[in-house]
Amino acid sequence: MTPAPADLSKLCVHTITTKPWTIEQSVPAYAKAGVKGITVWRQAIEGRNLGQVRSLIKDHGLEVVSLCRGGFFPARDATARQAAIDDNKKAVDEAAAIGAPHIVLVCGAALGQPLSESRKQIADGIAAVLPYAQKAGIKLAIEPLHPMYADNRSAVNTLKQANDLCDIFRSPDVGVAADVYHLWWDPDLESEIARCGRSGYLMAFHICDWRTPTLDLLNDRGLMGEGCIDIRGIRGWVEAAGFRGFNEVEIFSERLWAMDQNEFLQTLINAYRTKS
Amino acid sequence: MTPAPADLSKLCVHTITTKPWTIEQSVPAYAKAGVKGITVWRQAIEGRNLGQVRSLIKDHGLEVVSLCRGGFFPARDATARQAAIDDNKKAVDEAAAIGAPHIVLVCGAALGQPLSESRKQIADGIAAVLPYAQKAGIKLAIEPLHPMYADNRSAVNTLKQANDLCDIFRSPDVGVAADVYHLWWDPDLESEIARCGRSGYLMAFHICDWRTPTLDLLNDRGLMGEGCIDIRGIRGWVEAAGFRGFNEVEIFSERLWAMDQNEFLQTLINAYRTKS
Repeated sequence: MTPAPADLSKLCVHTITTKPWTIEQSVPAYAKAGVKGITVWRQAIEGRNLGQVRSLIKDHGLEVVSLCRGGFFPARDATARQAAIDDNKKAVDEAAAIGAPHIVLVCGAALGQPLSESRKQIADGIAAVLPYAQKAGIKLAIEPLHPMYADNRSAVNTLKQANDLCDIFRSPDVGVAADVYHLWWDPDLESEIARCGRSGYLMAFHICDWRTPTLDLLNDRGLMGEGCIDIRGIRGWVEAAGFRGFNEVEIFSERLWAMDQNEFLQTLINAYRTKS
Repeated sequence: MTPAPADLSKLCVHTITTKPWTIEQSVPAYAKAGVKGITVWRQAIEGRNLGQVRSLIKDHGLEVVSLCRGGFFPARDATARQAAIDDNKKAVDEAAAIGAPHIVLVCGAALGQPLSESRKQIADGIAAVLPYAQKAGIKLAIEPLHPMYADNRSAVNTLKQANDLCDIFRSPDVGVAADVYHLWWDPDLESEIARCGRSGYLMAFHICDWRTPTLDLLNDRGLMGEGCIDIRGIRGWVEAAGFRGFNEVEIFSERLWAMDQNEFLQTLINAYRTKS
């Protein structure tokens, strides 16, 4: 049985989790609460001086875990696909500027074309961005998304697919971000996590919970313990696969965003200690 | 390229699709519109004389394609699991009474226990019901449900899982109901449909569409053509796998239930002819 987290040393929070806060509010609040890592969403740093953002985070003793998010490669026309590649290169620059080791890729899916075509375009998009990312010292972490997002968010919907995609590149710079919300239902999850670790692909681990009923496909995720996901069990598999990185709390929730965010952050930390 | 359906000879409608109608309204309306098959939901026949329902359907020249639905086997306590088995036997009786060749199984999932345990209880439940169903001449069709229903509706979430479950029984009386809504995203769909057909498991084929955005996890399905599913492509795989049964239109939609149901039925038939 996987024990509860010993302390907060592996706790990372995504800026989107406390969406009502600016990054200037999030960073000191996370630090004060004992959070050790931060994953920065691009919206949170829009229009900012990235050197200042980097200093802000460093000065508060937080580690930048990743930049969210690149991807969205598929499109029906070539111009849009090139624009996506350019935007991913911009994300690489941003990651380098704030000191993030990798970008999380939400790979995308284009309505009006077969999923197989979107899947091919995702591989092509990663191939096009990879040399640029490598030059900047930034890795790419493919995040498989729940099948309910296969229409327009990601055509990569299982960990097996993400592992297969990594197998195309076999590069230390292309890996996987595994999120319990997207993957918990998968009967092959344990074996694919083991494969992911064995292959050296496991770059990130995201946690939250699946609520019953889920009222919205996007913004009704639960805090750890509010739902049915065996988070601790999955964390056990992830750690058994050799992962030693952060446990990143990534939650989209209108309900939780409506709370006082300081109070929410304390609730989150309690949930992390007892239910993760 | 799979051609459009030649005519309505393979069109079946689920009573739930026209939920505002009683079965006494649905049957004549379906027949008048040229629909040839009907899948009867248990709610639609509650409190009815089943012999009369059977006659009503037969007299209107409709074929009973299946009874929806049995299943919901997993539960944390044994009493509830036995109650589910008893209810499935009751469904077998109802199927026999109205002349349905099989029951569709929505297998269930119990909150508060591992998915692996729910999956085991599903296999046990089917094993417990099967001899009773065989005696009555009723087959059991396992319907894999979309992973977004893994919390409390079904722990069987891919066609591969359903095929694997059938492999346990290797009986002509245990098969699969394949629904495009649940399966369309699966990268292994084509090969698992082929396997399903080759193994003699393919008992039913359900169609509707996936809307973007989907506003509700349960009741926002689309009419064929309203979404992104390559229904015709999947039908091609199903037919290539040897399936010669009905194309069953099963739609849960508050939006479509709010329409005048005669008008909706005409719209459905047009969508069937052109987008299925």
